[in-house]
Amino acid sequence: MKLFLSLISLVVFLIPQGFSQTKPKNIVLMVADDLGFQTGCYGDKVAKTPHLDALAKDGVLFKSAFASVASCSPSRATLLTGLPTHQSGQYGLAHATHNAHTFRTVQSLPKLLQKEGYFTAQVSKLHVQPESVYPWDFTGEKVGGRNPVAVADAVKGVIEKAAEKPFFILVGFTDPHRAAKGFGNDAKLPPAAKTDEFDPKSLTLPYFFPDQPEVRAEYADYFRSVQRLDIGVGMVMKTLKDAKKLDETLVIFLSDNGIPFPGAKTTLYDTGVHLPLIVRSPNQKKRGLTNEAMVSWTDIAPTILDFAGVKPDTAMLGKSFLPILEEEKAKGWDVVYGSHQFHEITMYYPMRMIRTRTHKLIHNLAHPLPYPFASDLHGSDMWQGILKRKDTMMGERSRKAFENRPEWELYDLSKDPNELKNLAKSPDHAELLKGLQEKLKKWRTETKDPWLIKDSHE
Amino acid sequence: MKLFLSLISLVVFLIPQGFSQTKPKNIVLMVADDLGFQTGCYGDKVAKTPHLDALAKDGVLFKSAFASVASCSPSRATLLTGLPTHQSGQYGLAHATHNAHTFRTVQSLPKLLQKEGYFTAQVSKLHVQPESVYPWDFTGEKVGGRNPVAVADAVKGVIEKAAEKPFFILVGFTDPHRAAKGFGNDAKLPPAAKTDEFDPKSLTLPYFFPDQPEVRAEYADYFRSVQRLDIGVGMVMKTLKDAKKLDETLVIFLSDNGIPFPGAKTTLYDTGVHLPLIVRSPNQKKRGLTNEAMVSWTDIAPTILDFAGVKPDTAMLGKSFLPILEEEKAKGWDVVYGSHQFHEITMYYPMRMIRTRTHKLIHNLAHPLPYPFASDLHGSDMWQGILKRKDTMMGERSRKAFENRPEWELYDLSKDPNELKNLAKSPDHAELLKGLQEKLKKWRTETKDPWLIKDSHE
Repeated sequence: MKLFLSLISLVVFLIPQGFSQTKPKNIVLMVADDLGFQTGCYGDKVAKTPHLDALAKDGVLFKSAFASVASCSPSRATLLTGLPTHQSGQYGLAHATHNAHTFRTVQSLPKLLQKEGYFTAQVSKLHVQPESVYPWDFTGEKVGGRNPVAVADAVKGVIEKAAEKPFFILVGFTDPHRAAKGFGNDAKLPPAAKTDEFDPKSLTLPYFFPDQPEVRAEYADYFRSVQRLDIGVGMVMKTLKDAKKLDETLVIFLSDNGIPFPGAKTTLYDTGVHLPLIVRSPNQKKRGLTNEAMVSWTDIAPTILDFAGVKPDTAMLGKSFLPILEEEKAKGWDVVYGSHQFHEITMYYPMRMIRTRTHKLIHNLAHPLPYPFASDLHGSDMWQGILKRKDTMMGERSRKAFENRPEWELYDLSKDPNELKNLAKSPDHAELLKGLQEKLKKWRTETKDPWLIKDSHE
Repeated sequence: MKLFLSLISLVVFLIPQGFSQTKPKNIVLMVADDLGFQTGCYGDKVAKTPHLDALAKDGVLFKSAFASVASCSPSRATLLTGLPTHQSGQYGLAHATHNAHTFRTVQSLPKLLQKEGYFTAQVSKLHVQPESVYPWDFTGEKVGGRNPVAVADAVKGVIEKAAEKPFFILVGFTDPHRAAKGFGNDAKLPPAAKTDEFDPKSLTLPYFFPDQPEVRAEYADYFRSVQRLDIGVGMVMKTLKDAKKLDETLVIFLSDNGIPFPGAKTTLYDTGVHLPLIVRSPNQKKRGLTNEAMVSWTDIAPTILDFAGVKPDTAMLGKSFLPILEEEKAKGWDVVYGSHQFHEITMYYPMRMIRTRTHKLIHNLAHPLPYPFASDLHGSDMWQGILKRKDTMMGERSRKAFENRPEWELYDLSKDPNELKNLAKSPDHAELLKGLQEKLKKWRTETKDPWLIKDSHE
């Protein structure tokens, strides 16, 4: 008995020691490009996403997760810095003539983790700059992001290169982003990337889609791209499992912004920012959970740093949701914010947003301008069809309301989840409006919003 | 006689050889910060600018020289790349939250000249980025730009460092830019930088100034800053002379943009872009000339490269005015263009301009927005006075016209040099308007203007 007790003591003594000193705390952050809720685990009946569904069953599926901005580079900068776009400096797209840069002074996940001994790697799409802010031990920008085999191979290579070091891998899939034409479904890819045809008639269209043949055809094409993304997620998970890293790795899967159709991506409507988030932690006590906490992409970097045990010497980051990962209805997670400046450099349209469980307030700072269209959305069959027919509606939303916005938009999401009835000028909502405006201004002040400036008359 | 002829032949043979092979072709580009025509050589009766006047007497004074944009970083990028701001990528200010960057692929003067064996140096204000586009053998950004002694010392140091190499020195004075308060006239500077007091009553106010005591006081303060700039120019010229480099050096003096008062800087009115340019070439046959060619800041880099004998492998640059330097009225120099995107990042207001001898057309691409104010101009005593008194006029220009602009502005400068009467909707000018619009569109197409995009209805 004495020996037994001693053994128990020894074990109790050894476990936490061993854990804190040697157990690697790897991180894999998988980012889908322009994915909405077209997945089985989020309730879509047509989508074929068995690997994402399996990840959700093995992890935690967040029901109220929000991007801070619905544009690729700004959103990815937010993921990697924990800052809204007006504070990261990544105001718009990084490539070509758009040329936006994160501020040189900003701390990023790869920078902070590299300093703590991590092997940092990015595979396929990155889309933020400059390099000095985002230092990677392995750069895999040239890995084909629609090729699941290439992505998984690159991940395998990184794990081998990391050797004894813990690793942080950012996997940037290219699916289900639009290609120059369609969604890349005609690309030459290995047999493992083969996707099914989807019957356009079988699809339930989002409320902002006109029900037209070319729209259904385009949307069906999108589902194939989503399926290919799912195959990639499955291959990355298999790679982690085969390398025996699953029990040592935090896996996060999410999307950068809403679907690439007019009315979603580049907006701060829920279609642009309410997104999938699936987290699988090796430390979970239960699996297959759902979580209703309102989390923001500004919380992703703090969560990852928390998991890694890294405390950054900066006060600018959001907050870790690791402590409430397994709570279905955690208290104190009931509001998120958003900020948008550009998508393409010619698309100046700064907006600010506060969203609670029941309401959303959007401040359109450049409201005298028409709402600008991203070139891929402008070129979509959906938009070209609307132009050709001279439609006045985009599904349930009027084109006029979409293209010419007032300074303030206030929506009661409990009664109007599609954000169609602007209550900003409703006398019954004046007090609510004022309260949300004050909270939004407080957040802008705290996050040092450069757009908080005096106008010429002040 | 035979010997004499042989000697002549020898001399004739040797001179060009020696010239082309060994004579250094140094370049000094001096850039004033926010200087207009407040100099004696440009006809101002009050200004004290003996050194600029002397430079003009020894060189060529351009009467129709134009910046391509009236904002510091974009204008300096144009000077160093020969490209309008929409083509250089330096869309706005480089520092702080503005964070604009020249495209990585752009060729710049320091890059091209360094490759040809030049020692490249910048002294005091630079205000463009990234470093990879603008490589300097000597970086003197910390040299106090209001201290003429420090600037001249730095130039002296660069000449010594260059040793046997030809040099290219960019001198960026801080005068006569506004300081946090006033124009830096209270700064602790060496006795040599001492300036005179100017009598506010003695000043002739520009047409867009309200005649108010605080405006005259502020403008008088500005003249002191101009005088200090002039002292700096004198000291730089003396440094060149003392180093016996005057006969081997092309000297160019100009300003980045118009005066820092509401109605000038950040606009494409002549108050913003019609600027001083004085050139002194060691190869001049005559001195004290004036030149009426319409030259643009996009021509500065090609002129410098021409002087250096460097032919860049890029088709994007303007044209050298060296061949017509000593022609008072050269043919074929009768039009300039302009392009503006931002000043501060919050000041989105893209404009395009074509200016001939007699007319100007401005295209305000974001015309639904109110014209944005730079923070230094907003904070000026002039503007604060206008706000306090609720003035409806800015001198001869109406505030309404200045703050809310139509899409097109067309001015007949021969009858309306102050650009007060917009003829864009005048039926009598419809044909002229159309012709200028076509030329402007051609220029925008040739310069690959990213803002030449389809709107949502096309």
